[in-house]
Amino acid sequence: MQVAVLDEPGTLRVEERKRPEPEPDELLVNIREIGICGSDVHYYEHGKIGDYVVESPLVLGHESAGEVAAVGESTDFEPGERVALEPGVPCRRCEHCKRGEYNLCPDVTFMATPPDNGAFAEFVAWPADFAYRLPDSVSLREGALCEPLSVGIHAARRGNVGVGDSVLITGCGPIGLLAMEVVRAAGATEVFISDVVPEKLQVAESRGADATFDVRGTDLIDAVAEHTDGEGVDIVIEASGSEPAIRSTIDAVRRGGTVVLIGLAQDAEVPLDTGKIIDNELDMFGSFRYRNTYRAAVELLADGIVDVEGIVDFERALEDIGVAFERAREATTVKGMITT
Amino acid sequence: MQVAVLDEPGTLRVEERKRPEPEPDELLVNIREIGICGSDVHYYEHGKIGDYVVESPLVLGHESAGEVAAVGESTDFEPGERVALEPGVPCRRCEHCKRGEYNLCPDVTFMATPPDNGAFAEFVAWPADFAYRLPDSVSLREGALCEPLSVGIHAARRGNVGVGDSVLITGCGPIGLLAMEVVRAAGATEVFISDVVPEKLQVAESRGADATFDVRGTDLIDAVAEHTDGEGVDIVIEASGSEPAIRSTIDAVRRGGTVVLIGLAQDAEVPLDTGKIIDNELDMFGSFRYRNTYRAAVELLADGIVDVEGIVDFERALEDIGVAFERAREATTVKGMITT
Amino acid sequence: MQVAVLDEPGTLRVEERKRPEPEPDELLVNIREIGICGSDVHYYEHGKIGDYVVESPLVLGHESAGEVAAVGESTDFEPGERVALEPGVPCRRCEHCKRGEYNLCPDVTFMATPPDNGAFAEFVAWPADFAYRLPDSVSLREGALCEPLSVGIHAARRGNVGVGDSVLITGCGPIGLLAMEVVRAAGATEVFISDVVPEKLQVAESRGADATFDVRGTDLIDAVAEHTDGEGVDIVIEASGSEPAIRSTIDAVRRGGTVVLIGLAQDAEVPLDTGKIIDNELDMFGSFRYRNTYRAAVELLADGIVDVEGIVDFERALEDIGVAFERAREATTVKGMITT
Amino acid sequence: MQVAVLDEPGTLRVEERKRPEPEPDELLVNIREIGICGSDVHYYEHGKIGDYVVESPLVLGHESAGEVAAVGESTDFEPGERVALEPGVPCRRCEHCKRGEYNLCPDVTFMATPPDNGAFAEFVAWPADFAYRLPDSVSLREGALCEPLSVGIHAARRGNVGVGDSVLITGCGPIGLLAMEVVRAAGATEVFISDVVPEKLQVAESRGADATFDVRGTDLIDAVAEHTDGEGVDIVIEASGSEPAIRSTIDAVRRGGTVVLIGLAQDAEVPLDTGKIIDNELDMFGSFRYRNTYRAAVELLADGIVDVEGIVDFERALEDIGVAFERAREATTVKGMITT
Repeated sequence: MQVAVLDEPGTLRVEERKRPEPEPDELLVNIREIGICGSDVHYYEHGKIGDYVVESPLVLGHESAGEVAAVGESTDFEPGERVALEPGVPCRRCEHCKRGEYNLCPDVTFMATPPDNGAFAEFVAWPADFAYRLPDSVSLREGALCEPLSVGIHAARRGNVGVGDSVLITGCGPIGLLAMEVVRAAGATEVFISDVVPEKLQVAESRGADATFDVRGTDLIDAVAEHTDGEGVDIVIEASGSEPAIRSTIDAVRRGGTVVLIGLAQDAEVPLDTGKIIDNELDMFGSFRYRNTYRAAVELLADGIVDVEGIVDFERALEDIGVAFERAREATTVKGMITT
Repeated sequence: MQVAVLDEPGTLRVEERKRPEPEPDELLVNIREIGICGSDVHYYEHGKIGDYVVESPLVLGHESAGEVAAVGESTDFEPGERVALEPGVPCRRCEHCKRGEYNLCPDVTFMATPPDNGAFAEFVAWPADFAYRLPDSVSLREGALCEPLSVGIHAARRGNVGVGDSVLITGCGPIGLLAMEVVRAAGATEVFISDVVPEKLQVAESRGADATFDVRGTDLIDAVAEHTDGEGVDIVIEASGSEPAIRSTIDAVRRGGTVVLIGLAQDAEVPLDTGKIIDNELDMFGSFRYRNTYRAAVELLADGIVDVEGIVDFERALEDIGVAFERAREATTVKGMITT
Repeated sequence: MQVAVLDEPGTLRVEERKRPEPEPDELLVNIREIGICGSDVHYYEHGKIGDYVVESPLVLGHESAGEVAAVGESTDFEPGERVALEPGVPCRRCEHCKRGEYNLCPDVTFMATPPDNGAFAEFVAWPADFAYRLPDSVSLREGALCEPLSVGIHAARRGNVGVGDSVLITGCGPIGLLAMEVVRAAGATEVFISDVVPEKLQVAESRGADATFDVRGTDLIDAVAEHTDGEGVDIVIEASGSEPAIRSTIDAVRRGGTVVLIGLAQDAEVPLDTGKIIDNELDMFGSFRYRNTYRAAVELLADGIVDVEGIVDFERALEDIGVAFERAREATTVKGMITT
Repeated sequence: MQVAVLDEPGTLRVEERKRPEPEPDELLVNIREIGICGSDVHYYEHGKIGDYVVESPLVLGHESAGEVAAVGESTDFEPGERVALEPGVPCRRCEHCKRGEYNLCPDVTFMATPPDNGAFAEFVAWPADFAYRLPDSVSLREGALCEPLSVGIHAARRGNVGVGDSVLITGCGPIGLLAMEVVRAAGATEVFISDVVPEKLQVAESRGADATFDVRGTDLIDAVAEHTDGEGVDIVIEASGSEPAIRSTIDAVRRGGTVVLIGLAQDAEVPLDTGKIIDNELDMFGSFRYRNTYRAAVELLADGIVDVEGIVDFERALEDIGVAFERAREATTVKGMITT
């Protein structure tokens, strides 16, 4: 089978590898759609993310869906079924797993995180309980995009977004745009979004943001205050990783409100107004990947409640993955897809 | 001003009364739309609900909206503003009030609950902080129906309904139908509803229920099992007060699921399978009226996310209130409105 | 090795069986202390509990602790370590497991629940991640009693017991008495307990109950009202399974309070005042076994915060298990232990 | 009556003022014990705290208890009753009040926060529903110290401290030491505490800390790691306001753990490792004053579960308040009391 391998920064190579054999509890999945994530691009550019360093050839890609090609004997799937793959498989034994916080399992196997290979491949063998059947109304592309959608679902749950809430999302990348879909689905009635790229703000606007703020020329805090009678929003979801955005979350949220952090800043530390966290008694929640989200993601897609395909800018075949990554690096790109 | 008074069961009389004067923290509101609630009909028929007995002439009606006619000096309203009135004003001093559970305040003044008069009247004086401004996009009728919508919002919050959840609602009255609107708004992806009146089930179906169950001819548990792969729904909201429905909630919900009870049964006690509550580790929540719901209700209506006007069957002028109540008693009626 | 086998109701037989071999992820544990639970006695008397029927010879016992005799290669234990065994091992793969509600896993292997054998045996092989090291300050007997203590911890967590709360516990069996220990440890400042056996109430009194109610001669609701200024307690933990006690929970709890059900009633259904659940907006939680409790149990014991050994009435050697069960059947017995 | 007035930084003057008259819903309380809080000392030293500036003579003091001297007609108190006063009275009308977050009310009247006078006075008139009866077993001094104890209760609730938890408290001032009492009462089994003043650490040790860390010579993160098998504690409560301590909270807490911030830093912003908040999916909660804590505080004191008097270093009469404040400024002082 063909797989795309990252040998070193800037070099993606398609090579032939032996097709894996599924274990008894695994499925062999013919991967058909894979999203290019910002983290894939970061490994491509820098060869590492924080402490995770690409030391031997690595298969990237963790947003994937495909068709079941073969089944392990203890699974209840059948060949031909269409599935989305949840890319992180935890140890199932540690305290985090037992508490249901399996996204915090220190021994997780996570696609495309060194040294675990990912899904830019024709076939992947994967535990059946981390594969989710897609109904006819959900495309394989939507299945692959259950992954970034899951990030949005988890963030919205962490922030306890509910009916009638106002939400500010900082960052119009795939995560910010899909978080917007989820908070809408959860009943938020005012959704504002900010970025520094006009093209992305236009996408957000066309997808129904109540207001978009271009923070190159607008003071975010003032803009939020103006739209909320000076109160601030109920919840901020920080999805940019920009230091100014992270700092502003505390001023943009109302007294007693909630800040959810998803975006990783470039620097180790970001100056935060802890006095205001205290005086305004804020809740600030880190949000790391997701847990128990895929079923909800598939349901939301099956009902047409959220739109994920609309964030896709382009698709390329697996053999053109190098071209695809170069395009993915452009500032105005939201999401590129690889198809096999 | 004109008010409609219940002297004794079966007799509603329109009489002239002196227009009230607002206190400094009150508004005088020219009531324009008032919904007829099942509790109003119950007082009309029986002269009491449980321990609440109509002992002197009582003005019914607690689902109301109107225009501000005069303002107390310490309010920040102006004459002409359009408002919905939240009908329960708590003591603001007891432990329940301080915990934010003001719906449980034992000293609440609640419209149309003896001995407190209600809103079938041309004018009502009411504390300004329990009046909610309506934006232009929200009609006075919608404002009045914020009250039953609030019951649905509170029930959905009690049940912690979120994105991707499956919900069974038992009962297609106004509360059941509006709870359906709210759980949809909160992201529920499967919503089933049951009743014994085919006309009401048709209303539910036309409003988008995923399935409707006529429990005169269908076993509710079997029907739910069939629609949920035998698992049961995540949440049941019981809005009928029917004893068989209340009993069935425990069998209709999945292991680890949640039951919210709103509907009051006729008999003091209902036999429940407590063993299953334990073995399946259910959460069962009573849901009493609502608290902190009106702002969300207005927001949902302003955004067109929920439909409340569609449940109205008829309207009558205040002077025809007797006719209106007779029609409200019919089994197929969902909601009647009084206008002034 | 020797094991005690239940062939049919009333007959416990000690027989020789082959010592099990631990799997790579398992420990072989030399069981030293095993508590006799009410469910063991129930199987002994009736040969079944609900749908669980003893159809072939069954080893009872699920409250156990012992010494590691041999270790599977992938564990990090060493022979000689002292451990308590958590008796339920879930599938690790279902939705319940992934949500951290592993006590609700439908495919759990649970000691002494047909067809799974239990711990009245010299040796048991058990997954290492369900074995908990005991520090020197915790005895093996305390280790075994982590099991009923866990039931109390889970119930207190379900009821969200916190500092300053008042709690009524109905039932002075091991579960009620250990729940009392836990709610004290969690900061409850008023703890009341009821039963029908004076000897057990004396035990509760000597262990520090603020008041004990003998419900053969005292009206429980009146007694609670008298001790709570007529308000009712914040939380009721029902640990008797008695129908009158279950019914009374709703009247004994304050408005907005919480009821936790642990005790299984004899009859399928218990009449409950659902109107009061609604009007008083109660939270009623089923509590089934426990999850993620053993570490806390061991910590509480190591610090001497809770007393579990004090509920033990007698101990017998494994070969005298028949005598032990007869004594365990007596109404005044709280807890008997088997030692090997 | 005599009151102590702060005219300008460094000058506390005792003057004669007219005794206030209680409103119908108020009590006139003969104040007998008042604690000196760090905020009182800060106003004394600097004439302001953040945006709160002493612009006209201000009576300091907000930790108070005394005897009822006269009662407003709508209260249910009687002269001679002993009460603790909760020093913040909210507006009862805003959204925060209605949600039960009355500590976030922007229109609160809070003793000794400009321009509201405090309790260094012989008499105070105060709303009866913010006065709490003290049983015989609770001294007036304990009553006064319900205030800092409440800060600890609120912080422990915000951090959801429960049985078996490990907790690090940074800061051995009154708040840190009383938070330690509360987390113990809530079932924490490992409690560590840090400071830079050896005398205060000795107090903490004598009050039962499992370990104390003098962070002048010890790396806090290393020390915590050593005591928690490298995992970090379940919960950190930051009660020092020291920037290094605030920064270290994120490294001292386990993956998925909780940080509660109480202490206000000197600088507007503190650099925090937001990447770790995300990767370890932390919950960080501001904790501002308290709400709904006084009843629990009195219960804990009545049962002797917490010790508050033991943190008192000295007492002085009201006329010696200047001397008292000078002593309160010393680094080794934990708590001084004023008596009348």
